[in-house]
Amino acid sequence: MFKVTFAFEDGSAVETYANAGDNLLEIARDANVAIDAPCSGNASCGKCRVQLKSGELDSKKTLHISEEEYSGGWRLACVSKICADVTVLVPDIASAYKSRMKVADLSSKEEIAIFEKAKTSIELAGIELRNSLDIVDVFMDEPSLDDTMPDNERLTRALRKYLNISRVRIPYAVLKKLPGTLRENHFKVKCVIRTTPNDMFVYDIFGADHEVVVAGLAVDIGTTTVSAVLLNMETGEILAKGSSGNGQIRYGADVINRIIEQQKPGGKRKLQDAVIKETINPMIHEMCREAKLPKNQIYRMCVASNTTMNHLFAGIDADPLRMEPYIPAFFKTNSLFASDVGIDINKDAHIIVAPNIGSYVGGDITAGTLVSMIWNKPEFSLFIDLGTNGELVFGNSDFMMSCACSAGPAFEGGDISCGMRATDGAIEACTIDRETMEPSYRVIGDQETKPVGMCGSGIIDVISELFLSGIINPKGKFVREGRRVRHDKYGMGSYVLAFEEESGSVKDVEITEVDIDNFMRAKGAIFSAIRTMLSSLDFDVSMIDDVYVAGGIGSGINMQNAVNIGMFPDIPLEKFHYIGNSSLSGAYAMLLSTKAEKKTYELASNMTYLELSTVPTYMDEFVGACFLPHTDTTLFPSVMEKL
Amino acid sequence: MFKVTFAFEDGSAVETYANAGDNLLEIARDANVAIDAPCSGNASCGKCRVQLKSGELDSKKTLHISEEEYSGGWRLACVSKICADVTVLVPDIASAYKSRMKVADLSSKEEIAIFEKAKTSIELAGIELRNSLDIVDVFMDEPSLDDTMPDNERLTRALRKYLNISRVRIPYAVLKKLPGTLRENHFKVKCVIRTTPNDMFVYDIFGADHEVVVAGLAVDIGTTTVSAVLLNMETGEILAKGSSGNGQIRYGADVINRIIEQQKPGGKRKLQDAVIKETINPMIHEMCREAKLPKNQIYRMCVASNTTMNHLFAGIDADPLRMEPYIPAFFKTNSLFASDVGIDINKDAHIIVAPNIGSYVGGDITAGTLVSMIWNKPEFSLFIDLGTNGELVFGNSDFMMSCACSAGPAFEGGDISCGMRATDGAIEACTIDRETMEPSYRVIGDQETKPVGMCGSGIIDVISELFLSGIINPKGKFVREGRRVRHDKYGMGSYVLAFEEESGSVKDVEITEVDIDNFMRAKGAIFSAIRTMLSSLDFDVSMIDDVYVAGGIGSGINMQNAVNIGMFPDIPLEKFHYIGNSSLSGAYAMLLSTKAEKKTYELASNMTYLELSTVPTYMDEFVGACFLPHTDTTLFPSVMEKL
Repeated sequence: MFKVTFAFEDGSAVETYANAGDNLLEIARDANVAIDAPCSGNASCGKCRVQLKSGELDSKKTLHISEEEYSGGWRLACVSKICADVTVLVPDIASAYKSRMKVADLSSKEEIAIFEKAKTSIELAGIELRNSLDIVDVFMDEPSLDDTMPDNERLTRALRKYLNISRVRIPYAVLKKLPGTLRENHFKVKCVIRTTPNDMFVYDIFGADHEVVVAGLAVDIGTTTVSAVLLNMETGEILAKGSSGNGQIRYGADVINRIIEQQKPGGKRKLQDAVIKETINPMIHEMCREAKLPKNQIYRMCVASNTTMNHLFAGIDADPLRMEPYIPAFFKTNSLFASDVGIDINKDAHIIVAPNIGSYVGGDITAGTLVSMIWNKPEFSLFIDLGTNGELVFGNSDFMMSCACSAGPAFEGGDISCGMRATDGAIEACTIDRETMEPSYRVIGDQETKPVGMCGSGIIDVISELFLSGIINPKGKFVREGRRVRHDKYGMGSYVLAFEEESGSVKDVEITEVDIDNFMRAKGAIFSAIRTMLSSLDFDVSMIDDVYVAGGIGSGINMQNAVNIGMFPDIPLEKFHYIGNSSLSGAYAMLLSTKAEKKTYELASNMTYLELSTVPTYMDEFVGACFLPHTDTTLFPSVMEKL
Repeated sequence: MFKVTFAFEDGSAVETYANAGDNLLEIARDANVAIDAPCSGNASCGKCRVQLKSGELDSKKTLHISEEEYSGGWRLACVSKICADVTVLVPDIASAYKSRMKVADLSSKEEIAIFEKAKTSIELAGIELRNSLDIVDVFMDEPSLDDTMPDNERLTRALRKYLNISRVRIPYAVLKKLPGTLRENHFKVKCVIRTTPNDMFVYDIFGADHEVVVAGLAVDIGTTTVSAVLLNMETGEILAKGSSGNGQIRYGADVINRIIEQQKPGGKRKLQDAVIKETINPMIHEMCREAKLPKNQIYRMCVASNTTMNHLFAGIDADPLRMEPYIPAFFKTNSLFASDVGIDINKDAHIIVAPNIGSYVGGDITAGTLVSMIWNKPEFSLFIDLGTNGELVFGNSDFMMSCACSAGPAFEGGDISCGMRATDGAIEACTIDRETMEPSYRVIGDQETKPVGMCGSGIIDVISELFLSGIINPKGKFVREGRRVRHDKYGMGSYVLAFEEESGSVKDVEITEVDIDNFMRAKGAIFSAIRTMLSSLDFDVSMIDDVYVAGGIGSGINMQNAVNIGMFPDIPLEKFHYIGNSSLSGAYAMLLSTKAEKKTYELASNMTYLELSTVPTYMDEFVGACFLPHTDTTLFPSVMEKL
């Protein structure tokens, strides 16, 4: 056995042991060290770079590592085998996806504004903000030799009297607490209950003097990022907010790779553990600590996620999702409880799943559609969710159509050499001086924070600025020379936003032609999907009244720049609205309001779905859109004026 | 640390480690070595005898071990501390209660006769032998691009069509199996379902060609012994039968000691684990192996047990049961599922609990009353369950009254120096030659089996024979001399049934005056309870038409001898019927027939309860009954004729 040490830039390290010949990427996965490997370890993406610090590695050379880098100790983990004790540095940029959890500062109004917005919009649409959870005081007579009714019947009788409901269900967890709680509190208690017209379920019991917050948990499970809020189910108040990389990322960047991993022996459990035990449960722990709330006072949960993610979350075979005829195990399900899947909240808590409408349009979109409110007005709106898959919904109060396109992880910083999520160290906005070609940028974090990479909104800005400055041409190739523009020996151009000494990382923060190409395919997928879907309805982009943009791309998204690069249609800027993570705010609304939950099921069943691959013109549209801004420049008159 | 070895007579051993000063009985408990200690380790009962084989023990001397025995290495475990490596022999007789599991041979007709009887009686009483479990074939169309309904809706639609039920519930366990099972079987499946008028619950799904037995599990949890049968829920056929000591025995012989142990830190879990993980789950494992049945094809369970046992089973605080006003957490409960308590059967299986009617009359009696059929005829019947607590029900189709008395474990061989359960090696019947005073006996087991102790029916015979032979007097004191009668230095007499060389144990099989005294108190409790309850109703023993005797005392019980010793009233012998373990056959009937289950709830709520301690004459009755046969000899005319 050899000792393998993974060192991180912050000085921390993870130690493990391995046999000669073991693959370094596999060892990292087993040790829960997340090394980004979107290609799942077949040496094609070149992202799993580590730097040898001491000892030896038996590594193949690849085109992804230059000679100079190789002598500097850089290796791809996926082609490296153990042959001695070894210490490798895992650069922050390579572990941008590592499950770095963040519990948000709620003093920032911005963080909670989208939930306030969701709540208000729902209420304005006439949807009652009321759910079936409640807390009631129950005062009973103490038993005596003349009144020997057992504890459960005593409580049932009292609850029936209070609420005039015939059927009261006391689950095992409450039955277990019953004798102690009743006697310690002289039969004066309060109960957390769920009522429906015909029955009542008792979730919990406390002494009458106990202060009890009835909490709910909304979770958006993105392919790349998982976000959650803890809310007070009575008031809707946000008690805590958190986000984290999806721990499944080490099994592949996109849903297809994850499904393939799920088919391997033990795969269902592995993928489920990665998102629940390694991602969501630690977030719950942190959020509850922050909110000073016992975890088992979370009595309901809503999950909004794409269809693959909710299948993997539930540990259910997702293979049929990628095989014709693409059938999910469920659109809706009432079957999930916290104890079933091991979510660390009250074990009887029901898990609501925002409804899927097909294999490729899932609950993240139906929940997002709910809070986009596009279903509540006569004007035609386009709702765009920029996730690892891009999904669109177009329509109004009379109809809605959805479609999905595979954008890849670029909007969240994936497939981009210096890409990262919108967290500390990410360049979120950028301008480039037309003359000097020097960049100015805004970095997420405090004033001292140096850039380590770019998040989605930053990449849009950088590409738009490079294009408008004439540094790159419509094909994304570098055509101007300068201090910050360079070409490697294969001729691949790149632009350095921050040289190593300016950056917070061990290497330059740059954008390469490969990155730009990847991003153009992502934005091309979105634009061509918009055009294809509208055409199928005999609509034109000029007929769009409003565009609602959602997703983890970052609130800093510059709509003008997104139009400049041909990602969004060239229509008046005031029509664009960034609505944040609508999957999460939709899940929040579904928890808070039973009527909103029902509305979402209704929206889901009324929404039609367009399978883009069945539209003959889609491929042509896509190819045309993989240019800056587009091969058909007449589609972008305002952009052409600037050149 | 010192090495502690517990050696058994069969040559096996358990090794563990302990610190100097650790208590040997505690070490044995921790190592799951059951040493009988009814007094829970306070040196008063003298039953935790072990024999030092090598090494040393720091043991206090007690009256329970003679000087001679002490030099022979005999020690009480509860007063022995570790001071060196040590090996002790745990005699079989001392570990008569150890969780020795027995899976019955079903080729023996006797073993299954009581279930056949229960089934027939129930049916004759007009109670339909039908439960809500069913198995149905479900053939669906395979999905296509034109029929993209998700798996759970497809199944739901098909089940609805077949059974015309609006609400179909597919739990998580089935949802998880769904995509694979449907596709492997081309959407031709069979489902195990439970139907009620309004909804259907899908327990399981299999390929249409799969042979599936829908099984149920009936368990009688006695304070001393746990018995169970596995049954086919469709036909009622017994698939396997097992019994075992209750693993809780090491925490005390009676319910009061168990409740005290439950109050200690971690006690609820400890007592629950002892009966579930250590007793019932291993029995399920063995029975399923025997029946070649996967455990998760057990879809329902019924537990019949006294009120303390069902509270400890459920891990629910039983302390209020022993404190005025003696309130259980439940009489009935619908809340228990296999996954709640960790019973190793299908995790969604509902656990039916035979209803309690008070702290001291529990589900073992209500289930037993069901199959005793005393509720179904105009004649007056007495139902007696001889367990660690003795319970009586008297009545007919118009009324029923119950009461409970603390008989102690003597009927199952407890509190008797050579007492044991009715398993291999137990003397189950005995006669003593009036002249020679030599015994003849029948031992459970094959022809070669030598006696190691006596079970309840054997003890009744021995005491009756000693009394009728004039070897003991009405006070239970030895008054004749002979080869087999001896007195220790304190003057305590005993009768040797088998000298060491005749026995299968390392010591003589004998009965002492202390044993006889313990048994007289047990039988006295029963007889005085019968008299007190009948008097309270203005009845006399002569008005009893039938007596149904149930319990683990053994099918060999000799009713005449039980009358001879004054345990049962002196009425014509043909009125007595041994009905075996009616708690278990009652649980069996409740599983097999939903109507029988309902009937049991009805019987429970109609049965009145007499608290004997509130009847002023009870104590006098009891004192009078602690003689052979009674202080009032006019109550036993037929016995007096024999003397």
